[in-house]
Amino acid sequence: MKTKDSFYIRFFNPFTMSYLDQIASPTLVIDEKITRANLEKMADKVQALGKKLVPHWKTAQSRIIGTWAKEYGIKEVTASSISMAEYLSGQGWECIHIAFPFNIREIPRLNRLAAQQRISVQVVNVATAGALAEELTETVEFFVELDAGYGRTGIQPTEKAELEEIFNQASRSKFLKFKGFYIHPGQTYHGKEVDKIHQESQEALAQMKAKYLHRYPNLVTRLGDTPGCALREEFGEVDELGPGNFVFFDLMQVQLGSCTKKDIAVCLAVPVVDIRRDRKEILIHGGGIHLAKDVLINEDGSKNFGAVVLLHDKGWTIPSHSSFVKSISQEHGIIQASEELLASIQVGDLLGILPVHSCMTADCMGGYLSLDGQRIDHAEGLSK
Amino acid sequence: MKTKDSFYIRFFNPFTMSYLDQIASPTLVIDEKITRANLEKMADKVQALGKKLVPHWKTAQSRIIGTWAKEYGIKEVTASSISMAEYLSGQGWECIHIAFPFNIREIPRLNRLAAQQRISVQVVNVATAGALAEELTETVEFFVELDAGYGRTGIQPTEKAELEEIFNQASRSKFLKFKGFYIHPGQTYHGKEVDKIHQESQEALAQMKAKYLHRYPNLVTRLGDTPGCALREEFGEVDELGPGNFVFFDLMQVQLGSCTKKDIAVCLAVPVVDIRRDRKEILIHGGGIHLAKDVLINEDGSKNFGAVVLLHDKGWTIPSHSSFVKSISQEHGIIQASEELLASIQVGDLLGILPVHSCMTADCMGGYLSLDGQRIDHAEGLSK
Repeated sequence: MKTKDSFYIRFFNPFTMSYLDQIASPTLVIDEKITRANLEKMADKVQALGKKLVPHWKTAQSRIIGTWAKEYGIKEVTASSISMAEYLSGQGWECIHIAFPFNIREIPRLNRLAAQQRISVQVVNVATAGALAEELTETVEFFVELDAGYGRTGIQPTEKAELEEIFNQASRSKFLKFKGFYIHPGQTYHGKEVDKIHQESQEALAQMKAKYLHRYPNLVTRLGDTPGCALREEFGEVDELGPGNFVFFDLMQVQLGSCTKKDIAVCLAVPVVDIRRDRKEILIHGGGIHLAKDVLINEDGSKNFGAVVLLHDKGWTIPSHSSFVKSISQEHGIIQASEELLASIQVGDLLGILPVHSCMTADCMGGYLSLDGQRIDHAEGLSK
Repeated sequence: MKTKDSFYIRFFNPFTMSYLDQIASPTLVIDEKITRANLEKMADKVQALGKKLVPHWKTAQSRIIGTWAKEYGIKEVTASSISMAEYLSGQGWECIHIAFPFNIREIPRLNRLAAQQRISVQVVNVATAGALAEELTETVEFFVELDAGYGRTGIQPTEKAELEEIFNQASRSKFLKFKGFYIHPGQTYHGKEVDKIHQESQEALAQMKAKYLHRYPNLVTRLGDTPGCALREEFGEVDELGPGNFVFFDLMQVQLGSCTKKDIAVCLAVPVVDIRRDRKEILIHGGGIHLAKDVLINEDGSKNFGAVVLLHDKGWTIPSHSSFVKSISQEHGIIQASEELLASIQVGDLLGILPVHSCMTADCMGGYLSLDGQRIDHAEGLSK
């Protein structure tokens, strides 16, 4: 564990103390019940459709939260870097997928990892397939990532020669095995036409599967994004779903309609260090290095870096009057506070902040405190 | 040290290998010569004016870089949290100042730290002064932070009753000692009227000093922000200057005119994982968890998350044709590449990215690699 353990009082007696008594400095609090409910709901939905859920673990990045996921039948997870995959390896996952265009400078590390853990990677060009074919000394499967409109990365379904050459390169190695096609339709995060985008992605995957199934009879198709997987009820012929953020959700997902504020499973507990009642502002120890700098725009055009919740011994409640973080710098956050909040708050109190982007907040904080006062791990530095 | 050491090849022979051979994954590279030149220039300027330089160490957050600073006569530093002060303590600093409105939940920790290291804190309200007076068991000095227009935090010079009550509370404790007045004129980061803002801050400090010097004959005034300290040549009667970012500088400071790109002392080395020549895009492993999400707006209105530099065995060069990171997600960055860059680049190559906000990038990365292949420490997790 990290030196950040010094945040917490070392001799915590769960029978007499609340988790709140452990918090002196900014601390990421996790509600296990909400996390489990999010996992269970998605697992049930995907299972009922006869598909496999392979959640993207870049959100939680945790071994302990992985043990919760396994209770809902989840057997594989996805990492976004080789270091995160290393952190999650040896924990009983049937396979760990690294959902990032593979970085060929990391092949020696991949060989070491694949000697101990079943691993799949993602390939988006011939150069990478060629280097893997040349240098792999352990079996590694690969997905070809398709770009069905997001425009960040991936082979376009029309790039047939490129795809053929990837298969051609892979065939040179007995260690490099084609597993299937993967699409991350990240454009659903722009909040428009989730149905249409998912439909197009499903069709692209179905066409590729139909085309290549005779050559690769075990190939699977995987589609993953939280807005689509949370909002939609059917996924066509896609075999596997890979959303990540749903484990915790966040304000961005609330804005997209994927969840409500009550589904958000983590909040940053922050100490109040000053109150300016004249300006209706509360200054907190909690800034960009804690929350990250993701931001939403409120209806009135103002910026929102996080929503205030009220912490209590059993978790937190969402106040009926909105207060939010209106600006942040490296360590400071300024809350635009409701009259109700101002009336009840004092310097030295703790407030909770629901994050705009929980994956980034968890990555900043590198660990969680549960409501029963336990430290929950996060890969942190390892993921970089 | 952190587990991130696994990024680097373990058996590095400095006589035969370049630091570049150690880099397989995103790595923050530091040019010691540029860092030292930045330290020396600021130290010389401040010394020539007969003032004391107390740099804000939230940028470097490093013990090793602290040893470089000491060679230029720097004897005190500033931290932005108690955990950062803990990390920097015991390294021979005459005093460490925690430049953040003190969080009274951390008083037990402050007592432990102050037993070993001379510490000053910052006070912006009566409640905090009262709690410190009540609970301190070790000597701690305090600055009163003034708000001379930035509007983030601090006592306004007109709030005389509040200030008197802070002094009154402090007088109840033999451990709590008034040290002076502090202003962080952060509005200079908005790029306007640096001279006017600094002038007003200097005047506010001078007035407060004149008013209270008879009661506190040792009181000092401190002013700190990188744009002001870098751009201006005179600081009136202010006793101490406390800029931070100047140690590394970054693209934001270039935009503000505080430095040129050649003065930026750190760059993120990133592996190229895909190239889309049709779109003039290069996909890198390097995203929000590495660079942070600070962004500048280019002249044409496009977003800029970092500028490309070309890495070589001795450091990096700034290309004559601009390429920049136009979008980032958690792990991905997309570079809008010049024709010249596209013509020379291959999958698996490394590029350097000059950060928009070096303090945040260093905090994300939690360590540096020097050009002679040495690991340079960073407090990282400790700072949160």
